[in-house]
Amino acid sequence: MSSSPIDVALIGAGRIGVIHAGNVARHPAARLRVVVDPNRAAAERLAQRHGAQVGDDPFAAINDPSVRAMVICSPTNLHVEHITAAARAGKAIFCEKPIDLDLRRVDTCIDEVRKAGVPVFIGFNRRFDPSFRALHDQLRAGAIGRLEKVTIISRDPRPPPPSYAAVSGGIFRDMTIHDFDMARWLLGEEPTEVFASGSSLVDPEIGRAGDYDTAMVVLRTPSGKLAHIQNSRRAVYGYDQRIEVFGEKGMLQAGNRVATTVSRWDERGVVADKPLDFFLERYAEAYRLEIDHFFDAICSGRPPAPGARDGRQALVIADAALESAKSGRLVRIHADV
Amino acid sequence: MSSSPIDVALIGAGRIGVIHAGNVARHPAARLRVVVDPNRAAAERLAQRHGAQVGDDPFAAINDPSVRAMVICSPTNLHVEHITAAARAGKAIFCEKPIDLDLRRVDTCIDEVRKAGVPVFIGFNRRFDPSFRALHDQLRAGAIGRLEKVTIISRDPRPPPPSYAAVSGGIFRDMTIHDFDMARWLLGEEPTEVFASGSSLVDPEIGRAGDYDTAMVVLRTPSGKLAHIQNSRRAVYGYDQRIEVFGEKGMLQAGNRVATTVSRWDERGVVADKPLDFFLERYAEAYRLEIDHFFDAICSGRPPAPGARDGRQALVIADAALESAKSGRLVRIHADV
Amino acid sequence: MSSSPIDVALIGAGRIGVIHAGNVARHPAARLRVVVDPNRAAAERLAQRHGAQVGDDPFAAINDPSVRAMVICSPTNLHVEHITAAARAGKAIFCEKPIDLDLRRVDTCIDEVRKAGVPVFIGFNRRFDPSFRALHDQLRAGAIGRLEKVTIISRDPRPPPPSYAAVSGGIFRDMTIHDFDMARWLLGEEPTEVFASGSSLVDPEIGRAGDYDTAMVVLRTPSGKLAHIQNSRRAVYGYDQRIEVFGEKGMLQAGNRVATTVSRWDERGVVADKPLDFFLERYAEAYRLEIDHFFDAICSGRPPAPGARDGRQALVIADAALESAKSGRLVRIHADV
Amino acid sequence: MSSSPIDVALIGAGRIGVIHAGNVARHPAARLRVVVDPNRAAAERLAQRHGAQVGDDPFAAINDPSVRAMVICSPTNLHVEHITAAARAGKAIFCEKPIDLDLRRVDTCIDEVRKAGVPVFIGFNRRFDPSFRALHDQLRAGAIGRLEKVTIISRDPRPPPPSYAAVSGGIFRDMTIHDFDMARWLLGEEPTEVFASGSSLVDPEIGRAGDYDTAMVVLRTPSGKLAHIQNSRRAVYGYDQRIEVFGEKGMLQAGNRVATTVSRWDERGVVADKPLDFFLERYAEAYRLEIDHFFDAICSGRPPAPGARDGRQALVIADAALESAKSGRLVRIHADV
Repeated sequence: MSSSPIDVALIGAGRIGVIHAGNVARHPAARLRVVVDPNRAAAERLAQRHGAQVGDDPFAAINDPSVRAMVICSPTNLHVEHITAAARAGKAIFCEKPIDLDLRRVDTCIDEVRKAGVPVFIGFNRRFDPSFRALHDQLRAGAIGRLEKVTIISRDPRPPPPSYAAVSGGIFRDMTIHDFDMARWLLGEEPTEVFASGSSLVDPEIGRAGDYDTAMVVLRTPSGKLAHIQNSRRAVYGYDQRIEVFGEKGMLQAGNRVATTVSRWDERGVVADKPLDFFLERYAEAYRLEIDHFFDAICSGRPPAPGARDGRQALVIADAALESAKSGRLVRIHADV
Repeated sequence: MSSSPIDVALIGAGRIGVIHAGNVARHPAARLRVVVDPNRAAAERLAQRHGAQVGDDPFAAINDPSVRAMVICSPTNLHVEHITAAARAGKAIFCEKPIDLDLRRVDTCIDEVRKAGVPVFIGFNRRFDPSFRALHDQLRAGAIGRLEKVTIISRDPRPPPPSYAAVSGGIFRDMTIHDFDMARWLLGEEPTEVFASGSSLVDPEIGRAGDYDTAMVVLRTPSGKLAHIQNSRRAVYGYDQRIEVFGEKGMLQAGNRVATTVSRWDERGVVADKPLDFFLERYAEAYRLEIDHFFDAICSGRPPAPGARDGRQALVIADAALESAKSGRLVRIHADV
Repeated sequence: MSSSPIDVALIGAGRIGVIHAGNVARHPAARLRVVVDPNRAAAERLAQRHGAQVGDDPFAAINDPSVRAMVICSPTNLHVEHITAAARAGKAIFCEKPIDLDLRRVDTCIDEVRKAGVPVFIGFNRRFDPSFRALHDQLRAGAIGRLEKVTIISRDPRPPPPSYAAVSGGIFRDMTIHDFDMARWLLGEEPTEVFASGSSLVDPEIGRAGDYDTAMVVLRTPSGKLAHIQNSRRAVYGYDQRIEVFGEKGMLQAGNRVATTVSRWDERGVVADKPLDFFLERYAEAYRLEIDHFFDAICSGRPPAPGARDGRQALVIADAALESAKSGRLVRIHADV
Repeated sequence: MSSSPIDVALIGAGRIGVIHAGNVARHPAARLRVVVDPNRAAAERLAQRHGAQVGDDPFAAINDPSVRAMVICSPTNLHVEHITAAARAGKAIFCEKPIDLDLRRVDTCIDEVRKAGVPVFIGFNRRFDPSFRALHDQLRAGAIGRLEKVTIISRDPRPPPPSYAAVSGGIFRDMTIHDFDMARWLLGEEPTEVFASGSSLVDPEIGRAGDYDTAMVVLRTPSGKLAHIQNSRRAVYGYDQRIEVFGEKGMLQAGNRVATTVSRWDERGVVADKPLDFFLERYAEAYRLEIDHFFDAICSGRPPAPGARDGRQALVIADAALESAKSGRLVRIHADV
């Protein structure tokens, strides 16, 4: 690493932008150069903490010739614009999921990215959780022989405001999309059929806003592998994130993480810590490791993963799941473009 | 209990008959009087062990005036005949699940039972597993508030011979039927829609015989509660039987049982016991407790549960699940007769 | 087993006598013939339940020629008398621990037993707990290589009345004696030094009665192996019985047993069952298995274990531990006679 | 925090110096200014990583007027010299344990520190492990009522070279000293008696060098509370660090930490991760939190803890334990000077 550090521009100084900024700043091969956010105070706080500058305009940052990589944490509806501009400017791109909520816009964006030939990483952070990663690697190494079933339990601690339904594209495109990505990654085969059932049990306002807060999904691959995903928008005991893969020679489970290993034994029973409360704690290490992966990929010239096509496929499944939940029918997942 | 013991005739001296005979013999209110089985040697061994007589003919045993209760462990295709004759003879009836694989025959049988007004118990043993029972009771007592989701993982250690497919009625009517009963019991509300997906991943012969060995099911109730059931016909690590119920105020889990609490810590990790190997061990206590319940019900004059209607409803769901798996459609579960 | 059953006389129809009676009655090679207890009503209840007779006098039962085996559950101060009479009468002997609280009386008794050449089993039930047995067997099979350390945690749920101190011989001879037997069994080598420290923290009345309710013990063998025992006379969360053995290639742990596998996840954490409440539940299976072992030994002509010498050695260590606790000195455990 | 950062000099760029340097560099109130190590290359690597200078001489660094705080990671035999010089120079002092292996030298050093009135922190890192800290805080908050017993299991993954025995002062002053500090911290009362037994079971060379590699200790306080400590210099399954506190209203346990939550279920059982391999991983968070505590203390003007007196007391107990192990006697722990 005798070469000079990779200068990075960050768009979006919100909750997740702050996380990524810290991880970029700590990475030996990267240097946080510019932070851009319409909330100038937020941008300034973040820039100052890491010795970066504040930019006024995302496109100026994108087109700054000294910047080699973009970390895009802007609102979802701006992702395509920012990715497209960055691709045209030849930058390496790290973008939060999803690329967009509209598949046609995603396809147009992917075309641009392909034309530009730039590396693109989509922030499906869960692939970098050490436990999920270890489960995946053991699975691929044959620990349970031929895979037959994947089960993903994914529950948020608290529901978003009902108004979020419209902005987010609904539970399947906003929340389950992470699980669709995990299912694809673990199945090692594209699911081609989806059945989904959604309810509004947590907050009736979410239902009135046309969204679900509780969902069950079954995916099926051409070879007959089955995957089950289960979501809730509220779990009073914390952020519940578990995976189980089952196969010919056994099962692998990856469970929740806890703050301490303390247990209390008394008249009421044996009480252990509940899971860590939210994604910032649970996936703190995953966020760090995905940044590491992104810069390692840039340095080594290998494409980062998950990439733009992974972002697209998860959205394709989410759209199909929504159609299934609305229609009560099993829906075919359309083949890749 | 100053009254004389309840004399019992047992039909069927096979694996499960042996279990029930032992539990009847041990019950303070019951006395095993007659054992009938076409395999006379088996009947003799079992009768001798418990000081009972060997009967030649099931119907003679059923109509023996000294017999007050029947324990029916005959092959499934004889259940209806035996239940019907026992009902007409005014006996209390304990019958292994399922009543029959044909819904019309089941309905005819239930008519006879209702006319006779005799107590009928259908052997859905899992309701009597101490852990599942405790989970159920805590759920009903409000431990997690309003129920939203039920998840049932149920895997056999080893697949049956492919020839079993035809006799058994297939995975949904033979294996999942237990889970359908558990789902109904836990949901506290009749599911009205079922989606099922089945694969043959364990043994291709099972697939060629027209059956599945791997299945995922989603049930839905009118209020939007969701239940997921997952089956496999082979789990190399033992008999995998787990339940999770999730609701507004938390989650309850009931897990597998192990032979010992020993763990070994060495270079490879921390190794604990795998689950007990099969239903005879795992549900030994449940078999004992369901016999207790049956005789308690007789003694107290209260109807035993689960009863004939529960047996019917589980079959109705199984039929609908099979239709869903074959058609790839969500299937409505028809209302009770 | 074509031979006729072994007829058994039981002395003592108290709590533990009831347990053993049930297990004898259930054993295929044994038949409970006589029950003797000064509390005639208790003897009658127990005899009636198992189709046995009530005896008036323990020595008459002992000398009844049809009786081949004695199960002695009389008060500790009568054990020696009953064992001695039974030995002289040539009976196989099952006696609850301890043989006696006085070592000289124990030695005299052992002389009689040796002269008579009858099989004697001392009821150190914990050796038959399935988890402790599995731990022991894995240890002996080399699972952790050379053994280096043994740790035994043993806590009663509730303290005995202070008046019990005098009768019981104190915590070391009454409670820790079980752990001394386990330590000997696991160490596979006689400990030759003991250090003990006792406190009265649970109930000051126990201290005023000259006993301890809290103790820590360190044992040492000639080869330098170390064992730690820890007792409390009260654990609000139930009967706490755990063992850990550590060696060159790893560690084995055996933990508590629970009634159910249910866990509840809510705002306060993840709550699992506390340990089973007391020895009758925790060691139910051990009591059954030690009776099995006793009759198997009789049938096969092999000496049962633990035997009289084991009963003696545990008492020798208990006496030395008491001396250590009183004097604050490390005490040598005297060699076997 | 409008004031300028606290400039820090670090003495010792070895394994633990590297850890502390990273944590100092990351702390918002501190700035790593100088790194000194006789191994100049190591000092340079570390200084460069954090933008610090390399110093030639520890005393020059100590007396540098711009330096406000010293982090002392020099070899144990230099601690007293460095602490004394730093105290005289009026610096805040963070020093790795132990202060020294010789109690008189420790006392002289403490005199100097007291005269200087500077804040001193001794690096008993385990007090800052989140699980041990949570256990401690729950204990103090009354979660188990009156404390009665403390149990500490502490095992290293691999033994040090036998030559280390002389340098380190032996197992009690080198390894158990951490556990003595934990016992004091948890007991909330000074232990006044110690019994210790040591063996050489792991590596006979350690025994020949006059040291033990296996130890059991019992501590006793004036009120009769008991503590047990258990050490081994090798545990093939990783760094084993567990604590259990028991009291009138229950028990608290804190266990090992693992890299992932993955478990594998197969024919051999259920295999979970073994504990993290060594102190750098296990206590990574504790090292960070103790640095935070040190600078928080400086900023707030409150004395940091554990301090010099805590360092002294742990050594007093270690000396007494060694005397006990050598003599086979219970040894009184002398009162504080």
